Amino acid sequence: MDQSNLSHHYSQQFNQELEEMRTSVLAMGGLVEAQLEHALGALVGGDVARGERVVANDYQVNALDVQIDERCTAILARRQPTASDLRLVLAVIKTTADLERIGDEAKRVARMAIRLGTADHGRGLFLEVEHLGTLVRGLLNKALDAYARMDVVAALEVAKEDQRIDREYENVMRQSITYMMEDPRSIPFVLDIIWSARALERIGDRCRNISEYVIYFVKGKDVRHTSLDTIEREIIRHDRS
Amino acid sequence: MDQSNLSHHYSQQFNQELEEMRTSVLAMGGLVEAQLEHALGALVGGDVARGERVVANDYQVNALDVQIDERCTAILARRQPTASDLRLVLAVIKTTADLERIGDEAKRVARMAIRLGTADHGRGLFLEVEHLGTLVRGLLNKALDAYARMDVVAALEVAKEDQRIDREYENVMRQSITYMMEDPRSIPFVLDIIWSARALERIGDRCRNISEYVIYFVKGKDVRHTSLDTIEREIIRHDRS
Repeated sequence: MDQSNLSHHYSQQFNQELEEMRTSVLAMGGLVEAQLEHALGALVGGDVARGERVVANDYQVNALDVQIDERCTAILARRQPTASDLRLVLAVIKTTADLERIGDEAKRVARMAIRLGTADHGRGLFLEVEHLGTLVRGLLNKALDAYARMDVVAALEVAKEDQRIDREYENVMRQSITYMMEDPRSIPFVLDIIWSARALERIGDRCRNISEYVIYFVKGKDVRHTSLDTIEREIIRHDRS
Repeated sequence: MDQSNLSHHYSQQFNQELEEMRTSVLAMGGLVEAQLEHALGALVGGDVARGERVVANDYQVNALDVQIDERCTAILARRQPTASDLRLVLAVIKTTADLERIGDEAKRVARMAIRLGTADHGRGLFLEVEHLGTLVRGLLNKALDAYARMDVVAALEVAKEDQRIDREYENVMRQSITYMMEDPRSIPFVLDIIWSARALERIGDRCRNISEYVIYFVKGKDVRHTSLDTIEREIIRHDRS
């Protein structure tokens, strides 16, 4: 085998490693999506057993987190990637960290579902949280899709939609405060609703983080502390014109 | 200059780069500590202007975050570190991300300080939050110290002390609920106290994260999802015996 064949062989193997790493992240994303779906189902349906399964399964998310992180470290050590390969590995490390924390937030929602059980007051608030949860599930799906296709335009949409989730969260908060003031005995119960809404809002933030790593990978620019307008005008549109 | 001199020269320069990177993290840590101190001072002292300065200065934390991250990426691309050098760079990337988010939490506390202003009811709750804040400031200081000295025993202490903060946070929560139930008009005000306490509790979690990166760097083991007992028994004591 001559040298050029060897390096071709190495590079093919390396590409395969990168591809496997990317696929693992999507598998982890799918698992986290399922955890969120079940946590919300448990909360809205008053299904304690379903909530308990979410809490019990969180270890799977953590295991994938550690496994992907180890794989990334091994690639950095053995392959010493540069340029876009290096950016991909760094984007994967950061995406995995956010997915792990989305898993934690799903677990928090599941814990609230267990604590609330079949509480029959405040059904109106449950409906509000369900609506917020539907938006957040949609956003997580879009963020993972933008990641899968490394699509910066879709990533920008995710960042924009996170703002809608923040507004919806504020709405839940206002209604919760009114509810508590009208019926102070409901305070402990409504606080659990508030914690669930807060966890969902944080998931939205983390979806936005993931979309920023997509932009970082594709454009080579760190946009974490950059306004949406600037990202759109100077980074995404600029390159397309 | 012969080859060995050259590589010696390179390696010295590389060591200097690693040292500069480590020092930047400590500078960022110092800035974040100051932000937290001012945010707590603003909250407890009802000092709106001080709170506004914290919010205004958060961009400095973000700028350091981006700058250190870029430096780490450059080191990975140019120096292609392996073994403990690689672990150091990865630990720095993760520590910086947590410090940036501690900065965000300090900003949240400052925002609550601005909103609460000189509200004169609930002084007892302010005292509770002040106590929690003092514990959290101490923990951040210890986490940065463990990082500066790459001291795994000190890092383990940080992880243990985070549990004390969680208990103190639960205490603030219980008192806040009692307060709201006794005087429902206080609900919006007490919720702002709760958000501040929550932000402080999250800072404690992030101090624990930083301590885990210290253990990762020194011991080469990812202990993020490992119990304190296991870390102490199998990773820290094991190696010292």
